[in-house]
Amino acid sequence: MKPVTLKEIAEKLDISITTVSKALKDYKDVSPKTKALVKELATTLNYRPNAFAVNLRTKESKTIGLIIPEVVHHFFSSVIKGILNQAEKKGYLVIILQSNESYELEKKQIELLLNKNVDGVLISLANETADFKHINKFLSNDKPLVMFDKIAKLVNCSKVIIDDRKAAYTATKHLIETGCKNIAHFRGPLLPQNSIDRFLGYKKALEDYNLKYDPSLVFICENTSFEDGSKFAAEIVKNHPNVDGIFINTDMVAIGAITQLRSLGIDVPNQISVVGFSNWFMSSAITPSLTTINQPGYEMGKESFKRLYKELNAIKKKKPLSTKTITLETSLVKRNSTKNN
Amino acid sequence: MKPVTLKEIAEKLDISITTVSKALKDYKDVSPKTKALVKELATTLNYRPNAFAVNLRTKESKTIGLIIPEVVHHFFSSVIKGILNQAEKKGYLVIILQSNESYELEKKQIELLLNKNVDGVLISLANETADFKHINKFLSNDKPLVMFDKIAKLVNCSKVIIDDRKAAYTATKHLIETGCKNIAHFRGPLLPQNSIDRFLGYKKALEDYNLKYDPSLVFICENTSFEDGSKFAAEIVKNHPNVDGIFINTDMVAIGAITQLRSLGIDVPNQISVVGFSNWFMSSAITPSLTTINQPGYEMGKESFKRLYKELNAIKKKKPLSTKTITLETSLVKRNSTKNN
Repeated sequence: MKPVTLKEIAEKLDISITTVSKALKDYKDVSPKTKALVKELATTLNYRPNAFAVNLRTKESKTIGLIIPEVVHHFFSSVIKGILNQAEKKGYLVIILQSNESYELEKKQIELLLNKNVDGVLISLANETADFKHINKFLSNDKPLVMFDKIAKLVNCSKVIIDDRKAAYTATKHLIETGCKNIAHFRGPLLPQNSIDRFLGYKKALEDYNLKYDPSLVFICENTSFEDGSKFAAEIVKNHPNVDGIFINTDMVAIGAITQLRSLGIDVPNQISVVGFSNWFMSSAITPSLTTINQPGYEMGKESFKRLYKELNAIKKKKPLSTKTITLETSLVKRNSTKNN
Repeated sequence: MKPVTLKEIAEKLDISITTVSKALKDYKDVSPKTKALVKELATTLNYRPNAFAVNLRTKESKTIGLIIPEVVHHFFSSVIKGILNQAEKKGYLVIILQSNESYELEKKQIELLLNKNVDGVLISLANETADFKHINKFLSNDKPLVMFDKIAKLVNCSKVIIDDRKAAYTATKHLIETGCKNIAHFRGPLLPQNSIDRFLGYKKALEDYNLKYDPSLVFICENTSFEDGSKFAAEIVKNHPNVDGIFINTDMVAIGAITQLRSLGIDVPNQISVVGFSNWFMSSAITPSLTTINQPGYEMGKESFKRLYKELNAIKKKKPLSTKTITLETSLVKRNSTKNN
């Protein structure tokens, strides 16, 4: 069954298309009797106003774009869920795009979303992204964009983040306070701000507690994968026998490391203690359970949408728009991969 | 900077709006010189055709809807990734919605997508869904819809599935062949077809190998969660000491079960063997690693989009449309939660 048009309704009732259109919109110059007839027939025939024509009038698409570096990722899944939940409540639809951590793809996707005339964009930047012209171009169209998790300090837009440096400091301090003296760090790639900040928090804690910072104990996880953790844990055991603690950028990598350490016969936490980052639910399921930093993904998604929504409404009402950086709280979750202090 | 309009370009060049529009579309009745002028200015001023107006002409939105029961789920994340990858290649955007396993929400979302005028829909049904009027209504608009994973046999549309019954049969048969005689089943909720089929495959294997089917050994996991697995594993140990094998509907539940069994001092696989379903990557990381059925999520997403794309093109060319059910291959992945045979 093809959707019925205004014309067909008009023909069936032998009145003009204009009258049908006015009747459906409750114009005063159409008689109540005609209105009732038109509305009844429209319901019977399952009439549906053309979405594009409606959009052309209101200039709002009630759609936002969401660019995520990697969909198969527990943290980002939680963020997506938080966003979808809020969007649902406010009647917005979400177009989702995966940048695969590629700058080129991200640039193309921003362009696509502009052409699609979305009302706004939520984005976590790709690891590769070091140039922000595409983001600034989007913002120059008087459309709001909110960054979350992986952000660019240099772009003037709202951001929802955690204090990565502080959280990493807390994680490293916990290793120190439970007796570790030679602490390695498995860090994320070089470009993302959160991976830089976690590294800096680690380094600062060592300095504050008078432990020597040794660059040869910092390993870069290019894929932040289970395999990265497994590989570098083996390297630690082989080449750095004095290491007694590791602060790891992401739980997934930490689980890879713990699995490897145990298979090499290392006692976790007594020989080597491990702290992860994100509090992925699997962290409590592995043996030993993983001490980690709780990173609130769902809440991050929720707050990001809420901020975008506020800005969308400000633009609609032509109110002045100021950007804001929202920092969500993190906490240390103590489990069995570190010693009791 | 507001986007520039055709009118502004026309005014700046002192020509008519129609001429500008025709120039941009390379109409023959506009001189090459005017065309060059218009195009250059349009590029300089960052002209962007109004997406809605374009849509109104072509009646195609180049957008599809995707309804997923639960976003925070490794299998569905992989499906989403497969869909986004293909959509990207074919220039389609994907609006993602999460039904939260709710029939009411799913119904509302189908309606939303119809009003949004998406070109087609990909859907995995909510566990609650037992009535398909909303799906049939969507299909009656001459728009294609492809179901994947959780499908309805009664709806006449294309489907991308695995042979759940056969896969469950293989899993149960493996437990039997490695010596298990009292095999329990942790099944999914009652309504979804895949959960029914996995249960039937389990039952058939018992029958074929002359093992008694005992309904008290079938446990329904309402949330298919880690906690479900943990809870029922404890119940097995407490109330069914003769159970020596469990076939479990989903890896997540199986990991919960194994974690609980080990904490209760049960030797997996020698006292109780466990087979999961999905081959989530964590299955190879836990101790003991989990024997499971490999369920191709990424491929399922890819094939679902490909089928939808085929149907979208058939409709565009007004070709007759037949529906198709695509069954993807599964396989048994033997690891350490079952005995060697």
